[in-house]
Amino acid sequence: MRTRRAAEGDWPAIWPVWEAVVAEGETCMWAPGTDEQSARGLWMLPAPAHVLVMEVEDGPGSTRIVATALLTPSQPGLGDHVALAQLLVDPAVVNFGGGAFGPGGYGTDLASSRGVGRAAAEGMVDYAADLGYRAMQLNSVVAANTRLVALWRSLAFRVIGTLPAAYRHPWHGDVDLYVMHRFLPPGNPAPRVLA
Amino acid sequence: MRTRRAAEGDWPAIWPVWEAVVAEGETCMWAPGTDEQSARGLWMLPAPAHVLVMEVEDGPGSTRIVATALLTPSQPGLGDHVALAQLLVDPAVVNFGGGAFGPGGYGTDLASSRGVGRAAAEGMVDYAADLGYRAMQLNSVVAANTRLVALWRSLAFRVIGTLPAAYRHPWHGDVDLYVMHRFLPPGNPAPRVLA
Repeated sequence: MRTRRAAEGDWPAIWPVWEAVVAEGETCMWAPGTDEQSARGLWMLPAPAHVLVMEVEDGPGSTRIVATALLTPSQPGLGDHVALAQLLVDPAVVNFGGGAFGPGGYGTDLASSRGVGRAAAEGMVDYAADLGYRAMQLNSVVAANTRLVALWRSLAFRVIGTLPAAYRHPWHGDVDLYVMHRFLPPGNPAPRVLA
Repeated sequence: MRTRRAAEGDWPAIWPVWEAVVAEGETCMWAPGTDEQSARGLWMLPAPAHVLVMEVEDGPGSTRIVATALLTPSQPGLGDHVALAQLLVDPAVVNFGGGAFGPGGYGTDLASSRGVGRAAAEGMVDYAADLGYRAMQLNSVVAANTRLVALWRSLAFRVIGTLPAAYRHPWHGDVDLYVMHRFLPPGNPAPRVLA
């Protein structure tokens, strides 16, 4: 899997992922049914935001975007050393094989025991470290989504706060959101084009 | 003290308060020295944001803006029932009399034992309830600002999370931010002009 900064031209490939995750109504905040133009305005933010895409090979010389991430400073000014992160992973890929992404999938660059969601999350964390962020914050992890919470925990995030009844879940009703946090190691800006 | 929605024409009176609070570098995130045009863009946000001002009489038929607040949905879509709130109170007023605001101050509509900061905070909470918000969240309360933390606690907010080292304090170095939260009672929209 390759993580790179998105170009404007990537939007047509980002939108199906964005739409599919939001339609589920289980992992992120936007209203299911958000139209494409609004979605583009919410996601393709200008600097200091960084929009990332994670792509895998799905054939000879062909790639497919399976995830997208949005990094922004968590706070302006005196708090802009902390990245606020959002990650959307194509549900079709996450649901495929119960989190493992093996032979018959989109490429050969992934170990078969490793989930696409996990690989995408790792790519996002590494990218943020390379940008110079010193910590990463997730503001709205749906507490009822235990698989997602477990993923973040396994990547060294911890729950630093619980926002009670802050998420109107489509069938659970009002559920909690976790605020999750981890510090980041020093990055390695050299190998990336960060422009 | 009267809390009302700000009009564009209030900006010249809001700016000195904004600038003074930000210059201190102790209570909010924006970089000290933020210029007026940037400040206006950060604060005077369009709907669904609500910009409020708190004003007191400072003479016959004359009022003075002593605080300003910004209410936005804490999250879009499925989380927009929670208000994210920011409050800036003129330091000249907060520092006057150690929090009490008595005779010789800006007006006679305040009990002398009651701080301007507290009155402004109460006005903001009431306004958010009247707007229909079900809870209020403060995302970046500087933990080292114990007086401010105590104020919010006394207004029924509790610390639901601590963001470690998330604030580059001008002389303490990196200090924690608290995320604070409270539920709101049902509001009373009738008496206000909420347009």
